[in-house]
Amino acid sequence: MSITIGLDIGGTNIKGGVIDGNGAILARGRRDTPAHDASAIVEEAADLIRELSVAQKIDAVGVACAAYINRSGSLVFFSPNLAWRDEPLRERLRSAVDLPVMIENDANAAAWGEFRFGAAIEVNDVVMLTVGTGLGGGVVVDGVLMRGAFGVAAELGHMRVVPDGLRCGCGNRGCWEQYASGRALVREARELVASGTPHAARLNELCGGDPAALSGPDVTKAATEGDPAAVELLADLGTWIGEGAASVAAILDPELIVLGGGVSDAGALLLDPAAAAFRRQLTGRGYRPEARFALAKLGNDAGMSGAADLAARG
Amino acid sequence: MSITIGLDIGGTNIKGGVIDGNGAILARGRRDTPAHDASAIVEEAADLIRELSVAQKIDAVGVACAAYINRSGSLVFFSPNLAWRDEPLRERLRSAVDLPVMIENDANAAAWGEFRFGAAIEVNDVVMLTVGTGLGGGVVVDGVLMRGAFGVAAELGHMRVVPDGLRCGCGNRGCWEQYASGRALVREARELVASGTPHAARLNELCGGDPAALSGPDVTKAATEGDPAAVELLADLGTWIGEGAASVAAILDPELIVLGGGVSDAGALLLDPAAAAFRRQLTGRGYRPEARFALAKLGNDAGMSGAADLAARG
Repeated sequence: MSITIGLDIGGTNIKGGVIDGNGAILARGRRDTPAHDASAIVEEAADLIRELSVAQKIDAVGVACAAYINRSGSLVFFSPNLAWRDEPLRERLRSAVDLPVMIENDANAAAWGEFRFGAAIEVNDVVMLTVGTGLGGGVVVDGVLMRGAFGVAAELGHMRVVPDGLRCGCGNRGCWEQYASGRALVREARELVASGTPHAARLNELCGGDPAALSGPDVTKAATEGDPAAVELLADLGTWIGEGAASVAAILDPELIVLGGGVSDAGALLLDPAAAAFRRQLTGRGYRPEARFALAKLGNDAGMSGAADLAARG
Repeated sequence: MSITIGLDIGGTNIKGGVIDGNGAILARGRRDTPAHDASAIVEEAADLIRELSVAQKIDAVGVACAAYINRSGSLVFFSPNLAWRDEPLRERLRSAVDLPVMIENDANAAAWGEFRFGAAIEVNDVVMLTVGTGLGGGVVVDGVLMRGAFGVAAELGHMRVVPDGLRCGCGNRGCWEQYASGRALVREARELVASGTPHAARLNELCGGDPAALSGPDVTKAATEGDPAAVELLADLGTWIGEGAASVAAILDPELIVLGGGVSDAGALLLDPAAAAFRRQLTGRGYRPEARFALAKLGNDAGMSGAADLAARG
């Protein structure tokens, strides 16, 4: 059985784990990310790999990061949160740690992790939506991670859902991510509180009367307690997720749609409205089988575990 | 080299051809489609297969039809124009003609035909858009036709592009097909003529003053002559195609997008605005390679040839 290291390099920290072929996490480590220094990120990652390699023989390293990565997995084209531009990350890490290295987009790696060890085991056609601050996507087609011709497939959050809609961080308008993400949830919740409606009394209380202080977890907390406004906000978010997922399903026809990311901690409060909106909006209703929805199982480890498993496969 | 028969079963006629492994069409045949009689369609198709089998030994039969077909290619779930509902077409045809039979959605088969013998030879990640009365789609991912978990992938025309948009034949609102198809072109052209604007004088002339008589080929003819209104209508259509294709590319990241179907006879008048809108709307511009656009090469034979080649592969 292969023993590999998975790293998940985010804008704030680098998380690492030693993973066996069953997805068990044998050891963990962490570093702060020097996000603004391209070389320093590589050095910190290499240092974490060396730390995790002390106790046992490692076969390969898989790295997940929020970035556009080329098809062969050698080059990071661009990352919104890291200082890399056309960074030959695979070769730089490989020469630093003398191990085979593979690189994968973090949302793709998370989808692969759920496919191998989590909510989508033995389901060959899977769409995973990582609903965090933004909306990430990963796709498994017939048991193979879909990378695209140039390595940048499954940027699901940048499907346009509203012509002339809200401006997205990618530069375009109307991207799905602007309506189906933690950022969208918080925006809507803050606007609701700022409106002064008594309907938002509990949310107003949770943020101490300062809408700008309201967070996504506040909304989830209020909804879990049964606050009607918070339940509605999560249902609105779920509806955008489900309607967009119906468009994705018109293209990919998955068997299973997995909801992960921090916002999916809301559980059925998000999943049920998403599944209902999906069933309402799916083309060909009544004439075809329909995809199921499920919550992710691996939490924040999905990207790290998926990258480690991809590395084990070479 | 395999010799196979390809059939393309449409709502009006059944077209057949004997195809060799290089895509050469060795013989052709045709029947009217008894579209409202499920059994009669099968009998006509079998009759055409027998006619095409007289002159040479046939290895297999591939059938393209505008329908939802299950993953294994045995069952037609539903066709909008043919009387089939949960029709076990493969087994019925196989027992009628005593040859191996495979069935494929017509737009999928057309994409495969262009991939094997037409505009997308040796391009492993391809999206084909068949812009006819409606908008059909077919997708090749890493050299494999994408069928989806349930066999109904690549229904690209039913991606939602406008929330609460125009009602689609599928029952939903805002499907891409309602904005990026021959039907959309004719609707817009007729409305323009009906408005009475002198800008539409040439189009008004072509339809003898009766907007309801105006056809898609009329618009293409006027545009080819240089009529500004017709050029604008095709450019508007191209813009919807290109913007939607950018959403599709955010998901699939193809290397090449092929435009086929009758409306693509407009050539550069459609292709250039589509490619320009695509480049404008693609996420990650400036940080990633971009897909090319091309016109289809096989015309109306794409589905038949693609189905025949899929049958040759078993």
